[in-house]
Amino acid sequence: MQLVGDRGQLLAEGLARIQREVDRTFDELMPVPGDTRARLVEAMRYAAIGGGKRVRPLLLCATAGMYGVSREAAVRCGCAVEAIHVYSLIHDDLPCMDDDDLRHGKATVHRRFDEATAVLAGDSLHAFAFEILSMPETASDPFVRAELVATLAAASGMGGMAGGQMMDMAAATQEYDLHAITRLQQLKTGALLSAAVEMGAVLGRVPGEGRAALRNYARDIGLAFQIADDLLDHEGDESKAGKALRKDAEQGKQTFVTLMGIDKARHQARALVEQAVGHLAPYGAEADMLRALARFIVERDR
Amino acid sequence: MQLVGDRGQLLAEGLARIQREVDRTFDELMPVPGDTRARLVEAMRYAAIGGGKRVRPLLLCATAGMYGVSREAAVRCGCAVEAIHVYSLIHDDLPCMDDDDLRHGKATVHRRFDEATAVLAGDSLHAFAFEILSMPETASDPFVRAELVATLAAASGMGGMAGGQMMDMAAATQEYDLHAITRLQQLKTGALLSAAVEMGAVLGRVPGEGRAALRNYARDIGLAFQIADDLLDHEGDESKAGKALRKDAEQGKQTFVTLMGIDKARHQARALVEQAVGHLAPYGAEADMLRALARFIVERDR
Repeated sequence: MQLVGDRGQLLAEGLARIQREVDRTFDELMPVPGDTRARLVEAMRYAAIGGGKRVRPLLLCATAGMYGVSREAAVRCGCAVEAIHVYSLIHDDLPCMDDDDLRHGKATVHRRFDEATAVLAGDSLHAFAFEILSMPETASDPFVRAELVATLAAASGMGGMAGGQMMDMAAATQEYDLHAITRLQQLKTGALLSAAVEMGAVLGRVPGEGRAALRNYARDIGLAFQIADDLLDHEGDESKAGKALRKDAEQGKQTFVTLMGIDKARHQARALVEQAVGHLAPYGAEADMLRALARFIVERDR
Repeated sequence: MQLVGDRGQLLAEGLARIQREVDRTFDELMPVPGDTRARLVEAMRYAAIGGGKRVRPLLLCATAGMYGVSREAAVRCGCAVEAIHVYSLIHDDLPCMDDDDLRHGKATVHRRFDEATAVLAGDSLHAFAFEILSMPETASDPFVRAELVATLAAASGMGGMAGGQMMDMAAATQEYDLHAITRLQQLKTGALLSAAVEMGAVLGRVPGEGRAALRNYARDIGLAFQIADDLLDHEGDESKAGKALRKDAEQGKQTFVTLMGIDKARHQARALVEQAVGHLAPYGAEADMLRALARFIVERDR
């Protein structure tokens, strides 16, 4: 990826910092126990530490940072969102789901460990996300903790990520049009990205009515993110992506690229990013990281 | 099962009532959507509605009832605990885990639907538990909601149910002694049963220092419950149990029965129940349902 100018610098530093912070926080919060659960926690750590772009934690921290939230609290919440993301990858990679061997350039959890351990490691990371959110160290105000949990649970369940994953599974046999694909991806990918932004606003005690611009921003980058993913799946380099590509096409699934064509999809992703950045017009320099992240989403090569 | 006298009457009515309430609440909270997520929600409903003894919701409601908590709030929390229990059964039954075909006398979710749907239905019920707990309708006080989430998340993750399940998987190759089996079962089964009692106390706003007797009660019935399960697994009737039995022995796993023998195990379960009931001595008739439940746990035939 080519990062140019101040924006590129800001983003590169932001990504490097959040990757360090997320790794360190997961490391601290997941010590390996001295009994036969060790293998479970090792699998959780294998999946959660040292991989991934950490887009969701950065979205959360960048939003929370606009409102002066303590970085530590924001990073912990970011780890909760990331734990949900990681658990979903572990389960999606299972033989009965996408049957993938490679993730972030290394063997998937069920290949490195075994299927049963992968199921349980996913389940444990799922519960762990809510454990993190319910710790007073994450947010001293119980009202904030309760709202964080409500936001994350809604984004990850049947009305969010898991529901979107189910629609995606049906995509192999179902003829989806652009409207249906948009809805599917808003659930599968968009819900959790939106939750990251929303949770940053919750930590920042932004009242519901003050979150409209941030929500519009999150919705647009969520869609742009998925179009960019479809483009990468179509054109990308497997060694850079660190995972198998072109699986949607093999399974006969419709994607933004199959429905719109490459050029129109790329144009649409860029237009969505500009629209997302436009929603941030009310904010000053404090929103620069969100602006940089929006552009990163369509420019990334993995 | 033979239920005799007033105690039997109280319990039979309590079980019948909670079974109706849990089924009705799940039915209301899980409407089938009009899109391709329908199959997912149908699988969740298939697993969650119309099966199971509902011991955990009854424990929660019986405890909450001692402190005048609204029945509706207690039932909703009971459904959250039960959703965790049901999700764990779906995942435990998967081919890569216990590979079971039968649960509550009907086909397991992966047999009735498919493996991928079973994984996702479990994941969705997992998130759903936390969605229920974070609804203001469940508890209007956010402090209570936050504490409910903290209790349930801790009981279901690597430090509770999922951790116990991992230790259990290792039991096929590991030589566990009575101490290790006790620890394993405290995590695998005890943690969620204890959480049900604890959450009843949380709803009842019992301060932490006032929960010692209830916690001791819960710990003892948790262990008695598992010994009774091992006895049923050893001696029980598959048609009544509605699931395959004697799988532990097939896998060469140590259980309370293999380690203690049938007679000593039965004696131990009964002693634990008497001890549990003893912990309730400070309470009057308001704890009668908890007393009846304790005895049911060792007398049940499924």
